[in-house]
Amino acid sequence: MNDVLKRTNRTLHVSLEENSYDIHIKAGILQQVAEYIKPIFKGTRIAVAADSNVTPLYAAKLKAILEAAGYIVKLISFPAGEKSKNLQTVEMLYDAFLTPHPFAVTRSDLIIALGGGVTGDMVGFAAATLLRGVPYVQIPTTLLSQVDSSVGGKVAVDLKQGKNLAGVFYQPKTVLIDPDTLNTLPDRVFFDGMGEVIKYGYIADETLYEIINGCSNRSQLMAQMEEIIYRSVDIKRDIVERDEKDTGERMVLNFGHTFGHGYEKLGNYERFMHGEAVCCGMEHALRLGEAQGITAPGYAKQLREMLDRFGLPYQPNDIDRNELYAALAHDKKGSGENITVIFITELGHYTMKKMPKAELRAMDEALCREENRCE
Amino acid sequence: MNDVLKRTNRTLHVSLEENSYDIHIKAGILQQVAEYIKPIFKGTRIAVAADSNVTPLYAAKLKAILEAAGYIVKLISFPAGEKSKNLQTVEMLYDAFLTPHPFAVTRSDLIIALGGGVTGDMVGFAAATLLRGVPYVQIPTTLLSQVDSSVGGKVAVDLKQGKNLAGVFYQPKTVLIDPDTLNTLPDRVFFDGMGEVIKYGYIADETLYEIINGCSNRSQLMAQMEEIIYRSVDIKRDIVERDEKDTGERMVLNFGHTFGHGYEKLGNYERFMHGEAVCCGMEHALRLGEAQGITAPGYAKQLREMLDRFGLPYQPNDIDRNELYAALAHDKKGSGENITVIFITELGHYTMKKMPKAELRAMDEALCREENRCE
Repeated sequence: MNDVLKRTNRTLHVSLEENSYDIHIKAGILQQVAEYIKPIFKGTRIAVAADSNVTPLYAAKLKAILEAAGYIVKLISFPAGEKSKNLQTVEMLYDAFLTPHPFAVTRSDLIIALGGGVTGDMVGFAAATLLRGVPYVQIPTTLLSQVDSSVGGKVAVDLKQGKNLAGVFYQPKTVLIDPDTLNTLPDRVFFDGMGEVIKYGYIADETLYEIINGCSNRSQLMAQMEEIIYRSVDIKRDIVERDEKDTGERMVLNFGHTFGHGYEKLGNYERFMHGEAVCCGMEHALRLGEAQGITAPGYAKQLREMLDRFGLPYQPNDIDRNELYAALAHDKKGSGENITVIFITELGHYTMKKMPKAELRAMDEALCREENRCE
Repeated sequence: MNDVLKRTNRTLHVSLEENSYDIHIKAGILQQVAEYIKPIFKGTRIAVAADSNVTPLYAAKLKAILEAAGYIVKLISFPAGEKSKNLQTVEMLYDAFLTPHPFAVTRSDLIIALGGGVTGDMVGFAAATLLRGVPYVQIPTTLLSQVDSSVGGKVAVDLKQGKNLAGVFYQPKTVLIDPDTLNTLPDRVFFDGMGEVIKYGYIADETLYEIINGCSNRSQLMAQMEEIIYRSVDIKRDIVERDEKDTGERMVLNFGHTFGHGYEKLGNYERFMHGEAVCCGMEHALRLGEAQGITAPGYAKQLREMLDRFGLPYQPNDIDRNELYAALAHDKKGSGENITVIFITELGHYTMKKMPKAELRAMDEALCREENRCE
């Protein structure tokens, strides 16, 4: 698609047959939400679910906008944080949706998930499973959820055995992305989202990579944020369309995630945010790729320089390798000991290697000795 | 389809594009389960989930048969009864599936739901949502689940607000129906399943109705059970194929269920089993249809005679009408006050009427006065 068009019309159509939908990216779109809802929802009642952080920032505002457009609106709030992303909170959401005042949600009503990734995943799961599926709309308000979890239809909650282990595929009726909502994010949460954006650059879009690499701070990034989000979402859209149910190609989205999930888990999901762990994972995968002659030389160093500028982490030096490899184990697709690693060949291009976990570990340990970082 | 073929080859193909599957109906099929699983499952590990009633009857036997065929088998048992059909038991199932010994279930493994309707619905829901979908097979062991809940892909659990309120659509890889398992059912549970069988006769199959009407006891019914199940499932298959997501025509399956659900709920799900409540509901709907000149005269009386032979209930005489109408309220599809009632015109033919709930009630009260049963 031509770049001028991209800049003037940032609507993406996700083609998934009867589950197709549009993603609209526009600063200030939150003010116009009613006109984007009208074409995809013929009912009159909307339940808006948001967490305790987002509720005071945007929920009352959204309610007022929807009510002004004639909708009957029910607001539902739940505790913020990954710790709330479980079946108990889902049951609380079912309860709130079914409470008669001001209305009990039916399949003729609409649910809006307003907030970050946890909200999108969990409210999406509740919407997918309540009455076997109530239509829903995503309004992601963090960079991570705007570029990642609002696209692809993966909705889920965590179980005590791991993240996102209970879930389904369920597509929203539309996704409305307002980059202005990023202004209320703390720096750390903002840059956490950049982890996934950088990933899109590596796997599919050299121009996106160059845009990011040309920025050294948050305000420079924000000046190009519609374009950055558009390019990121467009890549994910393209990959998801070709592999809706995540059976093959979609695995490329796991670049940086193989080790990333391990780092995230070892840090008990507290030390690293998701995008931060992905940064550690990407740097690890680039370094390993260079050592294997798969990745063009110098990539890992350039990434480290970028991460330094953005205050993002890499090479956490107190990670126990045994624990890291144990943490890689839980692969939804895996039937056992094999693991698929995504390596970047050059900017925008990748290769997937499926190998026994033991082989990956041996490769990694050889690199470690070479770098003189292992005892 | 020609009746001889039906008798010699009782396999039904459910055509739902990539969710298509076969239903095999055969006395003794439980012994041959491995040869029916082989074509639809390439893995080696199978988790069998059954409730505390079915576990001692069939689970160990099934495990031995599968192990003899080379599979690694994990048995999971959970408390029997509708009271267990909730999110807490689902969480227990997730736990059991993910426990490493003898293996933690992945998407490359298979889950078998062995048991009645509660098991099929709940284990099906757990399979649909674990890791965003683990393939599963239904082996229904009650008449009700063989003719009803094993076909159609509706999986769900109850919430405190009502039955089956949390669920999704998820199709099994195959359904294996062994009429021999009906021999271990108590009479009441056996005849409960006949409620749905009778329904299929009314809505779509005069021959099926005549087969049932020609029987006066359980052993006469059992002598023709493969045919009875085949005809029932074939009707449901046909309707589900035309309306997988339950948006229109599938509503005919609700014959007897509009009032039936009300009776079931008023009896607190204890007084009436599901099929029993459907019998009450069908008799109610036939009587109402006759009074309106929609249903051919004499139908309600003939049904009452059949229900008497089978010891099935109708016209519970201590039902509070206000409570009954309040109990009809929770309609997943309904946006409010309208309700769709299925009326039989003549055997095998029906009509659907959508009307305000108040109109149905007025109609019902007029009938009641006419019959001199109201104060």
